[in-house]
Amino acid sequence: VLDKVCPIDEAVSGVTDGAVVAIGGFGLKHSFPVSLLAALRRQGARELTLVANSLGRGEQSAEALIDAGQVSRLIVSFSARPGFDSSAEVLIAAGKIELEIVPQGILVERLRAAAAGLAAFYSPTGVGTSLTAGKERRIFSGREFVLETALPVDYALLRAHRADRYGNAEFRGGSQNFNPAFGKGARTTIVEADEIVEPGQIDPGRVGLPAVFVDSVVQATMRVVPDVTDGRRRPATARRAYLGKPGWSRGEMAARIAREIPDGSYVNLGAGMPSLVAAELARREVFLHAENGLLGYGLPVDAADQVDPDLFDAAGAFVEPRPGMSFFDSVTSFEIARSGRLDVVVLGGYQVDAAANLANWSNPGQIGGGVGGAMDLVTRPRTLIVMMQHCDATGSPKLVDTCSYPLTGLHCVDIVVTDLGLFRYDEGQWQVRDTAPGFTAAEVMSLTGLSNARRNQS
Amino acid sequence: VLDKVCPIDEAVSGVTDGAVVAIGGFGLKHSFPVSLLAALRRQGARELTLVANSLGRGEQSAEALIDAGQVSRLIVSFSARPGFDSSAEVLIAAGKIELEIVPQGILVERLRAAAAGLAAFYSPTGVGTSLTAGKERRIFSGREFVLETALPVDYALLRAHRADRYGNAEFRGGSQNFNPAFGKGARTTIVEADEIVEPGQIDPGRVGLPAVFVDSVVQATMRVVPDVTDGRRRPATARRAYLGKPGWSRGEMAARIAREIPDGSYVNLGAGMPSLVAAELARREVFLHAENGLLGYGLPVDAADQVDPDLFDAAGAFVEPRPGMSFFDSVTSFEIARSGRLDVVVLGGYQVDAAANLANWSNPGQIGGGVGGAMDLVTRPRTLIVMMQHCDATGSPKLVDTCSYPLTGLHCVDIVVTDLGLFRYDEGQWQVRDTAPGFTAAEVMSLTGLSNARRNQS
Repeated sequence: VLDKVCPIDEAVSGVTDGAVVAIGGFGLKHSFPVSLLAALRRQGARELTLVANSLGRGEQSAEALIDAGQVSRLIVSFSARPGFDSSAEVLIAAGKIELEIVPQGILVERLRAAAAGLAAFYSPTGVGTSLTAGKERRIFSGREFVLETALPVDYALLRAHRADRYGNAEFRGGSQNFNPAFGKGARTTIVEADEIVEPGQIDPGRVGLPAVFVDSVVQATMRVVPDVTDGRRRPATARRAYLGKPGWSRGEMAARIAREIPDGSYVNLGAGMPSLVAAELARREVFLHAENGLLGYGLPVDAADQVDPDLFDAAGAFVEPRPGMSFFDSVTSFEIARSGRLDVVVLGGYQVDAAANLANWSNPGQIGGGVGGAMDLVTRPRTLIVMMQHCDATGSPKLVDTCSYPLTGLHCVDIVVTDLGLFRYDEGQWQVRDTAPGFTAAEVMSLTGLSNARRNQS
Repeated sequence: VLDKVCPIDEAVSGVTDGAVVAIGGFGLKHSFPVSLLAALRRQGARELTLVANSLGRGEQSAEALIDAGQVSRLIVSFSARPGFDSSAEVLIAAGKIELEIVPQGILVERLRAAAAGLAAFYSPTGVGTSLTAGKERRIFSGREFVLETALPVDYALLRAHRADRYGNAEFRGGSQNFNPAFGKGARTTIVEADEIVEPGQIDPGRVGLPAVFVDSVVQATMRVVPDVTDGRRRPATARRAYLGKPGWSRGEMAARIAREIPDGSYVNLGAGMPSLVAAELARREVFLHAENGLLGYGLPVDAADQVDPDLFDAAGAFVEPRPGMSFFDSVTSFEIARSGRLDVVVLGGYQVDAAANLANWSNPGQIGGGVGGAMDLVTRPRTLIVMMQHCDATGSPKLVDTCSYPLTGLHCVDIVVTDLGLFRYDEGQWQVRDTAPGFTAAEVMSLTGLSNARRNQS
């Protein structure tokens, strides 16, 4: 009888030096195929190309393959997370690892294209940014697109909730993420599962990756569940002072943004500061979208004993279920992002400029960085809100004439909320529409780096 | 509170003359949004473009919109089914309806591309056939692809098993088919559901189309379930005579083909004659794939009281469930077809020629026809078997030097089984590898239209 279950070391035994290996999983620690990654370390293949959204963090992650010297090339959305040292970035800087940063929605779309037998596609993501520099451009219906090629891989290492002996894999909640598309796009697909069951025990409508795409099933030997505090942000009440007067706290900025979001909206909140807006929307009929494949999820979970390990948002924070929620994979998640169906996207920002350009993913001169889903998210939301401190750590305004940081998207920002006020882009200009208490619009505008706007104001 | 449930006539009230309307559903009668189609007839919008795999058949179908004079353009995989009169084809022939035939897997991929915000993609389907004539061609890694553009539509009319008030839609079995992709690719998506439930009643992992893509939910007012005999083929035992001797019956041809299919294979069987092979594989560990979104289904159902209305194969025949089965949408179904993961595809044929080209979807001079999924299925199976009578109704051989019928695929056929024997394409030539009892290989070859092969044989 057909039985794809095999010992874990046997499953990875065929990985050759130089192989291209795609790895499912999300963020720092969520739903990575940690048992298979450990087996691949034991197996020892070298000169690997790793394809992943992020590498994870620590001993039980793809980072450990890098530390073991097994990796020569990365195709990722995140080569590092802000605030963490990354051994990958050290090796990249030393020229020992080749790096290709790909926007998250395009990464999964390129593997999915390979699965679908397509050679290439024209994408709106990252047009005009450094990540599409040198790619073929083409106008369709008056809009510019870039050519992205299919990315076939040799192996996919995936993590499933359950799998049957035939190879059918079932995923749960936000742990579905890249797994189906990576599994479909690989020549050889290996699934580690918490539980291996007999054919017929998985509801045929809950199979996330049909058996035809799966070559081997292995029993997971470990599972990493992040701490309940990982990815969490508590509302910050501290206020910075400008002209001797306090601005809005981060919590107040979040509350101000929530007022811009009508009931019935579908909303994506970026990691970091924007995730504070979630609490403001908790009791309203607003549907939160997370890139890892959730729509309509609830509040962050506070207590470790209430954690569902598969229910986490794109910032990696565990969240509560909510009636009317749905789960899907990263392909569908970025269809939502790029289809124009999202009403509001709230992202953090390094800089926004006079042309409504956004820079929020990398510093000038930085090697690598984390573009994540931002470039896909800014392609077509009805309203893009950028939430950022009015000035950076050096005291320089973040609303500027021309972005000096690498761009995320062109002409895409509708609203900026800083700790000093709310700006709306109207008739090609930034206009102050609200201010922190005690500030005039002229004061707030004078504290930006916008020379035109300051002149108009005076 | 957000409630997308609305009266059916109100849901379609905004459809304007000239709108582009996508319609889910499969075959002649399976899982069409019949309540919404009836409402659209009442509503009366004209000059519609209908986008569908097929139009269905009868009063409760998209055909009725054509009969009512509401349609000026069709973008379909099937404009007609062999053996049925089609009012569409009469109007197409009279120049009153414009027709674009699109391979099934590309139809769903073009709507899905619109949903994903992509402008166009390079496809391997139909390269070198009349259906891609005039399209831009391009070589990637030595293989030719054609440029297919995204197909955004104004409305999608879909049929779901259940939907909640927020708009989340759940599909069942083979009734999922085009619904998710069409719903994602439309500006306005309307779902009719057998049952409308409260948010939270649908398992979040069973939502096939998340609420963000759905604009209105209506209660289905009717459901059409085909007769248990629709789409069924009983093994034919009649034998034709050649040189005064009987060839194989269709059942014997099916049994001969089954011997070419190893255990553990993933297999797609075309409609018509190839569907007879299913019964030969029933007790073996072979996994049948159906374009409408099933893998690993069982035998045809014989008794009306055993029919599950959502469990049918691509020929429209009701089938039994089988342990280890999985359900998915048409996008995934054609990822399976084009990814190279299918071991064997068995299709019917009008002609196969000396270059291993296949013609099986339209007659010379025919207006319209039914290409279905054939052009996608022939792109990359490990083995393509064509099952056809040795001669057509006029007595002309179907294995010929050069196809005179419109091509389905180039250089794609590996094995041909006729009622006289089994031919394998080997080193650029058709070789007889088995014959019906009482025939020599030379006799069988002499009855083909292959001049080279006949010369070599003599």
